[in-house]
Amino acid sequence: MTTYSELNRQQLSEELNAQLARYEDFKRRGLKLNMSRGKPSPEQLDLSNALLTMVLPDDRHLDSKGEDTRNYGVLSGIPEARELMGQILCAPAEEVLVSGNSSLALMHDTVMRSMLHGVRGSKPWCTLDSVKFLCPAPGYDRHFAITASLGIENIEIPMTAEGPDMDAVSHWVEHDPAVKGIWCVPKYTNPQGIVYTDEVVRRFAGLKPAAEDFRIYWDNAYAVHALTEPVETVLNLRDACIEAGSPDIYYMFASTSKITFPTGGISALSTSATNLAEIERLMSLQNIGPDKINQLRHVRFLRDLDGIKAHMRKQAAIIAPKFEMVLDTLDRELEGHGIAEWTRPCGGYFISFDGLEGTAARTVELAKAAGVVLTEAGATYPYGLDKLDRNIRLAPTFPSIDELEIASELFCICVKIAALEQLLG
Amino acid sequence: MTTYSELNRQQLSEELNAQLARYEDFKRRGLKLNMSRGKPSPEQLDLSNALLTMVLPDDRHLDSKGEDTRNYGVLSGIPEARELMGQILCAPAEEVLVSGNSSLALMHDTVMRSMLHGVRGSKPWCTLDSVKFLCPAPGYDRHFAITASLGIENIEIPMTAEGPDMDAVSHWVEHDPAVKGIWCVPKYTNPQGIVYTDEVVRRFAGLKPAAEDFRIYWDNAYAVHALTEPVETVLNLRDACIEAGSPDIYYMFASTSKITFPTGGISALSTSATNLAEIERLMSLQNIGPDKINQLRHVRFLRDLDGIKAHMRKQAAIIAPKFEMVLDTLDRELEGHGIAEWTRPCGGYFISFDGLEGTAARTVELAKAAGVVLTEAGATYPYGLDKLDRNIRLAPTFPSIDELEIASELFCICVKIAALEQLLG
Repeated sequence: MTTYSELNRQQLSEELNAQLARYEDFKRRGLKLNMSRGKPSPEQLDLSNALLTMVLPDDRHLDSKGEDTRNYGVLSGIPEARELMGQILCAPAEEVLVSGNSSLALMHDTVMRSMLHGVRGSKPWCTLDSVKFLCPAPGYDRHFAITASLGIENIEIPMTAEGPDMDAVSHWVEHDPAVKGIWCVPKYTNPQGIVYTDEVVRRFAGLKPAAEDFRIYWDNAYAVHALTEPVETVLNLRDACIEAGSPDIYYMFASTSKITFPTGGISALSTSATNLAEIERLMSLQNIGPDKINQLRHVRFLRDLDGIKAHMRKQAAIIAPKFEMVLDTLDRELEGHGIAEWTRPCGGYFISFDGLEGTAARTVELAKAAGVVLTEAGATYPYGLDKLDRNIRLAPTFPSIDELEIASELFCICVKIAALEQLLG
Repeated sequence: MTTYSELNRQQLSEELNAQLARYEDFKRRGLKLNMSRGKPSPEQLDLSNALLTMVLPDDRHLDSKGEDTRNYGVLSGIPEARELMGQILCAPAEEVLVSGNSSLALMHDTVMRSMLHGVRGSKPWCTLDSVKFLCPAPGYDRHFAITASLGIENIEIPMTAEGPDMDAVSHWVEHDPAVKGIWCVPKYTNPQGIVYTDEVVRRFAGLKPAAEDFRIYWDNAYAVHALTEPVETVLNLRDACIEAGSPDIYYMFASTSKITFPTGGISALSTSATNLAEIERLMSLQNIGPDKINQLRHVRFLRDLDGIKAHMRKQAAIIAPKFEMVLDTLDRELEGHGIAEWTRPCGGYFISFDGLEGTAARTVELAKAAGVVLTEAGATYPYGLDKLDRNIRLAPTFPSIDELEIASELFCICVKIAALEQLLG
């Protein structure tokens, strides 16, 4: 393939015209496709339909301690669900709280509580002049939105292939007492699919924060969401923190949203027993207990970590070919032109794509005009602001393979057009 | 029966000894009973077991707009659930948001959002020197706890047989801009079972608050929870507010916690479309969507308001005899002694009991020592402080009839002992 930068203006114009002709062909087809949504396909959801009959009218409705799952109470979740989610988070059941359908809500509410109550006796953040959160980017827009909405300053931290730039993280955390947290997705990061190295996890555990109420927000959203074998592992943050003498420095989160049913799943928060006691005390003001019936369904359906892994292999069998379809198209259309880079994730839900500087928004615009919705350019950065305007998050799981074939080819054409327009000035 | 106040000291002593003898008999039985918990009995829960099979693996999993209830999205709830909960709240579906398992969480989070974001452009309450909430008392301790925990000043408002003392309410709301809300249970109040009169509802709707961001928190927790026929009705707050020219002044809440399964149910918030738009915008930071499968289950199981009413008649058939057992015992043991008053609710979950001044805590203590747990004295007042120390909330639904017979007889003995001790000085 020809590197575009080696073409002269006339060659660039000819290539642009060729791609525009292809683009117009696609446009005439009246497409209505969507590669923006990190959500499972109906086929993936069907894998969990047996969940729906795991608790039946004549069943035993009691949890392992004899509490009726249909009734009030048991704020921290039923013991067997705490055990199950603890296996995902590598934490003992007694340090795990299992809640409703949304780990995002657990994170959001943890920040809200810190704003209004402080953390373990610290001043409520809403009374401080300045509160900052570190945001490794590209990252998850909903994380950044929680802190931004509360007037917390989101500080962009560069991502490396090993995880967040830990020199930058250490510098901020250890020198600025306004830094109260960092948003992390340690495994198969959204959108790059990066797996934090052991060294990165150890450096997190070894942080000596300037603020006593600094916490690592460790959203292990894709803990068991491998696409390929052998499955990669992330060092156990909890154990590393205990070893480093900072047992209270982290909050870990997970959910079954992309294991069973999104919004029909269960969520979990794990932290030190001391932190958890405070969270439970404040959470008891909000809720009398989670939907324990759905927790019981999940335990009966998934059983244990082996059960989860077996289930996730079925998920991978459905979505890995979709990732391959998109990656094959990117390879075929874009490799060698010198206008783009992209990730080849071993798990998670996304491919992270970087075009030429200044072309992401134009690419998204072109695709939209031809009927293919992509994640908004900039969405993966704090305040939706990708200074280089080059990152686009591709979400291959929801569309069918046939739709992905069309959508990713069109995407590549849009990338080329945007690049050629840029090179032509 | 003899009025205790007419007895001389010797007669009082003899009566005290007689009651103490009875008390010791009970104490020897090693009872372990609980009349404190406003929770349904297992028999009530069994009425809703068919809910568990309302959404099956091979069913259609789509809502009425074709959205897959198993997947992400639909923050406001599925249309048919909004319709159903709207029937309970007497509001159109488009003004109803249906959420997870807890209306308490909806209320808590509404206060949290107001603290951090203000209400429709008003200053965040956390930035104000003084924020006050009105608390008609006796009332629901979990309401009062939400505001107290945030440093909001809970102002006690006397209850009358018609509802809150509206002269007091008007005075506070219309003259003090720090008053931002009032906690209300309009039908079968917790604990007194009072039904707000039409006049009270109209006076609520006609309030002209000093604070633009004042809202009525209308927790219609027992909207359909009648014990007796004919069922009483409460004037439609929404319509009254629109008529009075204050369409944005209220938030209404309800849940199916005591219709189907506590913590396995669905909850709803209804307010003006303009208020709701703000709530949805802020809630979208917290959650991608509620458990829509459980909403679908509820719609299929309960169908409509007639279905709900038929279901609640079955609930009443189980719990009305329990209320009668407690009331019969109170009548038999206490009537005519001049030491107590109690309510005869037509619905809801509680009997409100008033003993002689200064005897409630002692009564609860005596009962506990004999193995019967009652709601803590004072719990029904802001900050747990019943200045007269006379109110006790009795919860007859959870224990069996046999247990209630024992527990309520022991309760009456404790009431008498506490009264006699008090009269003897």
